[in-house]
Amino acid sequence: MRVLILGGDGYLGWPTAMSFAEKGHEVCVVDNYLRRRIAMETESEALIPTPNLADRARLYAAAGGRAMDVKIADCADYRLLSQIVAEFQPEAVIHYAEQPSAPYSMMGFQAADLTLRNNLGVTFNLVWAVIEHAPDCHIVKLGTMGEYGTPNIDIEEGWIEIEHKGRKDKFLYPRQAGSLYHTTKVLDTDLLWFYVRTHGIRVTDLMQGPVYGLSTPEADIDPRLVPNFHYDDIFGTVVNRFLVQAAAGIPLTVYGKGGQTRGYLNLNDTLQCVELAMQNPAKKGELRIFNQFTEQFTVNELADRVQKAAARLKLKVKIESIPNPRKEKEEHYYNPAHSGLMELGLKPHYMTEDVLVAMLERILPFQDQIDRGRVMPRVRWAW
Amino acid sequence: MRVLILGGDGYLGWPTAMSFAEKGHEVCVVDNYLRRRIAMETESEALIPTPNLADRARLYAAAGGRAMDVKIADCADYRLLSQIVAEFQPEAVIHYAEQPSAPYSMMGFQAADLTLRNNLGVTFNLVWAVIEHAPDCHIVKLGTMGEYGTPNIDIEEGWIEIEHKGRKDKFLYPRQAGSLYHTTKVLDTDLLWFYVRTHGIRVTDLMQGPVYGLSTPEADIDPRLVPNFHYDDIFGTVVNRFLVQAAAGIPLTVYGKGGQTRGYLNLNDTLQCVELAMQNPAKKGELRIFNQFTEQFTVNELADRVQKAAARLKLKVKIESIPNPRKEKEEHYYNPAHSGLMELGLKPHYMTEDVLVAMLERILPFQDQIDRGRVMPRVRWAW
Repeated sequence: MRVLILGGDGYLGWPTAMSFAEKGHEVCVVDNYLRRRIAMETESEALIPTPNLADRARLYAAAGGRAMDVKIADCADYRLLSQIVAEFQPEAVIHYAEQPSAPYSMMGFQAADLTLRNNLGVTFNLVWAVIEHAPDCHIVKLGTMGEYGTPNIDIEEGWIEIEHKGRKDKFLYPRQAGSLYHTTKVLDTDLLWFYVRTHGIRVTDLMQGPVYGLSTPEADIDPRLVPNFHYDDIFGTVVNRFLVQAAAGIPLTVYGKGGQTRGYLNLNDTLQCVELAMQNPAKKGELRIFNQFTEQFTVNELADRVQKAAARLKLKVKIESIPNPRKEKEEHYYNPAHSGLMELGLKPHYMTEDVLVAMLERILPFQDQIDRGRVMPRVRWAW
Repeated sequence: MRVLILGGDGYLGWPTAMSFAEKGHEVCVVDNYLRRRIAMETESEALIPTPNLADRARLYAAAGGRAMDVKIADCADYRLLSQIVAEFQPEAVIHYAEQPSAPYSMMGFQAADLTLRNNLGVTFNLVWAVIEHAPDCHIVKLGTMGEYGTPNIDIEEGWIEIEHKGRKDKFLYPRQAGSLYHTTKVLDTDLLWFYVRTHGIRVTDLMQGPVYGLSTPEADIDPRLVPNFHYDDIFGTVVNRFLVQAAAGIPLTVYGKGGQTRGYLNLNDTLQCVELAMQNPAKKGELRIFNQFTEQFTVNELADRVQKAAARLKLKVKIESIPNPRKEKEEHYYNPAHSGLMELGLKPHYMTEDVLVAMLERILPFQDQIDRGRVMPRVRWAW
C-alpha cells in the first residue's frame, strides 16, 4: 500500500516507517522536527542521540532496508500538506503529527497555543487534503486513552449506547481529558467524526495508552536506528523515567499516591495495531475507534516492576512519593474495553522482566549523560 | 458591573450592549467586523443598512443612551484581547465573537478554516486573558442548542448522569452537531470545561436556539439602532428568510420535509437570559450550562405562522418544499430541557402573530432591496 506517515520522526513514527517499508509498503514520511525543537527549548533532549529523519532513512536503506520518501514539511501548513497528499496519492495516512507532551501543553499560554493550533490544525488540514485530493484514503489517527480520563463507569471502545428516560441512542463515549494535549485529541475526534458524517471520509481513531520499548526488528539492525528515548518530565513517559532513575541510582518518583492506572503497550504492538488497522480499513463514512493497549498497571505497580528488573542488574532502587504536579485522581476505577484489535489479530508482547532488563541494558551505557534536573517535574498543572 | 462584550457589532452583540448600558453597567464592546466582511464577500449584506459600531455607539449616546467604550480589534489576536482584558478589568465577559454562519462554515476549506481558527482561537484567547489578567471574571459564552444535534433521547441542560453496567457517573451531555460552525461550539465547550477543571475559571455556556426579532427597548429609540437583519442563506435564520419571502411574494422554501424541530426565542429574551446569567455568576471552577430557548417549532409550523401573519397584511404566501442542501434529519425526536433560565427569572416573550406582523411591517419598506438570488440555498453540505 502507499502509506503516508505524518510525524515520521517521532517515537512511533520512525519505527512505523521502517516496519512498513520492511513489509513492502511504499512509505512517505513527513515531519517538521517540532518535537526536536521543543526538546531543545525545554532542555528535554533524548538520552540516546538520533540522526535526523533524512539521515535515518539513508542509514536504514544502507543497512539493507527499503528506501522511503522523506519530506521535511509542516503539516499545519495546508498548502504543503495538500500538495504532498495530491502528489503521493496515499491509500492510508498514519497521523502521528501532533505535539505529544501533556506537561508541555500545560506550561502556559504560548505552549498551550502551539499545542492547540498544531494538533487541531494538522488534523483539520489532513481531513481537507483527503477530501480534496484522495477521498478514498483511510486516515489512521493516533488518539489517546487519555481522551476518556478516568470515569467511574466502564470505558467502551469509542462508543456507548445510552438509555435515558426510556429511550436509547448511541453516542461517542463521553471524554474529558487531564491535560490540554489530551484535550486536543478529544477535539480531533469530534472534528473527525463531524467530517466522517458529512463528507463520508474513512477514519480509524486509535485510543492508545503509553507505549514503552526500544527494540523493533528494524531498529535493532543498527544502533543509530533506535527510536527516540526521552526520560525527562516533558517527553518522557513514566516507564522511561523510572528506568532512567533506576540506571542513575535516583529513587523512582511516584506522583502522589501512585494509584493512577493506565493501559500500556509494547512498541512492537503499536506497530502491529497500526498495521492491522491499515490492512482492515474503516468503511467510507465510518469512524472506527479501537482502544490500543494490552495490559494495565498502576504507577506503583510500574515502580515495583522496574525495581525488580533493576535488581537483576544489581541496581539498588528506592521508591519515593513526591507531590503530584498534575491534577488527576490518584486512586480511581478503571476498566476499559480493548477487544477490537485482538479480534483483528493482535498478538501482545507483555511487559516482562526480560523486556525491562533489556531496556535498562540499553540505557546503562548512557548513564553519564543522564541529567538529574530533568527527571523531576518542572511543570505544574495550575498555579 | 464592568462588562466586556466580544462581537459587539453582531445581531445579539449590539442590542446586548445597548441594553446593558441602559441598565447602568459599564460596557466595552469589541468587534473586528468579520461578519460584515464575510457578508460582503458572499453577497449576504443585511437588508436594513446599519451604521458601523463606533457610529452606532455615538448615535445611541446622542439619542440619550449611555456612553460605551468601542474597540475595533480582532479577539483572535491574543496580544490585543489580553491587553483589553488587562486594562478594562471586566467582571463579566459576554463572548459572542464567533463566525456564526453554518452554511458559510460548509463552503469549503477556506471558510471552514477561518471558522475553526476564529471561533476556537477567540475562546482559547479569552480563557487565557482571564486566567492571566482577570481570574475572577465570569465568562458568559454563547453556545448553541445545535451542539446537541437531534438525539433520540431527551436533551438535558448540558450534563447527563449515565448509568452503565451497574455504575454511574456524570458527564457533559454528548454532542454531535450538524455543521462545522456548530461543531466549533462543541469544541469550545470541551475547551472551556477543561480550563474550568484545571484552572478554576468560572463559565456559563448558553446553549441558545435561533433568535428572532428586531425590536428592543433601546433599538426602538432610533431606526438606525436596529439590530442586523440578514435574510440570505448564509446569515439569515429560517424565520428571517420566511418573513422576507412573504414580503417579496416568493414562496416560503421549506428544506425537505420540514419536520426539523428547534427551540426558538425572542431577541428580548436573549437580553434577559444573558443578564440573568451575568447577575447570577457561575462559581469558580464551575461550568454552568443553560439551554436558552422558550418554545419549539418545526420548520413547517414556522412557515404556517409566517403565512398567517402575512395574511393579516393582505400578503398571499405559498409554501414550497425544496431539496435540502443540508445533511440533517427532517423528522426526529426532540425534547430538550430548558428550565434553568426560567428558574433564574426569565419571563418569555412568545412568537405571537403580532410579533411576526410587526417584523413584516419593519421589512416591507425595504421590499425593493430584496435580492431573490440570496434567499435560495447557495451552499450544499457535501458534494
